[in-house]
Amino acid sequence: MSVKKNESNEKIDPQKSQTANDQGPYEFKEHDSKSDVVWHQASVSTEMRAKLLGQTPRCIWFTGLSGSGKSTVANALDNELYKLGVKSFLLDGDNVRHGLNKDLGMSENDRIENIRRIGEVAKLMVDSGLIVLSAFISPYQRDRQIVRSMFAYNEFIEVYLSTPLAACEQRDPKGLYKKARKGVIKHFTGISDPYEAPKNAEIVLDTSKFSIDQCVSTILETEPFTECEYSKPAK
Amino acid sequence: MSVKKNESNEKIDPQKSQTANDQGPYEFKEHDSKSDVVWHQASVSTEMRAKLLGQTPRCIWFTGLSGSGKSTVANALDNELYKLGVKSFLLDGDNVRHGLNKDLGMSENDRIENIRRIGEVAKLMVDSGLIVLSAFISPYQRDRQIVRSMFAYNEFIEVYLSTPLAACEQRDPKGLYKKARKGVIKHFTGISDPYEAPKNAEIVLDTSKFSIDQCVSTILETEPFTECEYSKPAK
Repeated sequence: MSVKKNESNEKIDPQKSQTANDQGPYEFKEHDSKSDVVWHQASVSTEMRAKLLGQTPRCIWFTGLSGSGKSTVANALDNELYKLGVKSFLLDGDNVRHGLNKDLGMSENDRIENIRRIGEVAKLMVDSGLIVLSAFISPYQRDRQIVRSMFAYNEFIEVYLSTPLAACEQRDPKGLYKKARKGVIKHFTGISDPYEAPKNAEIVLDTSKFSIDQCVSTILETEPFTECEYSKPAK
Repeated sequence: MSVKKNESNEKIDPQKSQTANDQGPYEFKEHDSKSDVVWHQASVSTEMRAKLLGQTPRCIWFTGLSGSGKSTVANALDNELYKLGVKSFLLDGDNVRHGLNKDLGMSENDRIENIRRIGEVAKLMVDSGLIVLSAFISPYQRDRQIVRSMFAYNEFIEVYLSTPLAACEQRDPKGLYKKARKGVIKHFTGISDPYEAPKNAEIVLDTSKFSIDQCVSTILETEPFTECEYSKPAK
């Protein structure tokens, strides 16, 4: 179990793949109007929303093999945050797969798009002032880096569940590893598809060595969830 | 300016278009595990999150022609809610077009997908306890109905900006109507593409007859934003 602050935050420009709809006529800002609709006040900023919620918004991004404990730790953390009065939300397969990403399949492009969209939603939620937890395998370094680059420095906390493959496979709660070994399931992360372990995750947890409670405590000790840095007096 | 409660809430089954990834191996719930990772507490519910935020989460969906005042009224409402201590968030072209939906163009399918994704994100945010405002033309009845069907009864408040086309075109803040009339922009809502006015919007506002402040007041009077219905004693 290790905890570190990632000093580098390499940016991948998410604007690069902008498409024709940038100039699209069907959505545009009306509040710079010169007409009788007058834009008479500024928008509510992320900082204002964070102050109202009394916390520093951020994304806690869980990554790891199937069966490594991502959902379990994220759910347990979500519960602890609730008890602390922290306003959080958990993005996981339950609320994303059948909703926002129900149009996506298993192709490489769809997997990339799956993680991109989750990142974009997490970013919108962070902008709303929430602490967002996300629990998806997200096996590729590049995809996770794209998500990281959507956030400001220190808004994105990567939690790598480093539980070894052998332990994950032994758990095999839905028999997926068994099916993957038999070749019934193709492209299964850790068996027939790679998992690229994070090199600079802020927190590393191995649920084969530590209990769920220990993992949650580690995350809680690392991040000052109940503080709002925007409300601190300037130094 | 009219206000009504929509009694019907016809459901379109958003599950119908589920795809193969439902059985996909790369994301699954780990917390029904029979293994050593034990699911030891229930998830935080929307009701619990709403109580923590002290409000009744819902989606305020602004629809109307380009130039009708959607963004302006939504922004002004967002500001007023902030002053009241209500935890809200505004989804609009600014934060959706260059992020989540940057891969979408102007085709019919892309426009449908644009509104679907915004609806799904609004639903996730409502589940997190927030009051979500959304300001997009969303010209088609069917698309708005699909979004409405994602929400529970009374969670979705449709606000129709009924400002007449002539007034919107006279404002023409970005010269888009002019370009549309010249045929430079194709498929422009109200000119070369239809706008299907809501028949059962909860609130109807005409910004050519009423000021922004009047419109905001009307919405504030209609919805008890500062109350949490989950915290009321049972009748």
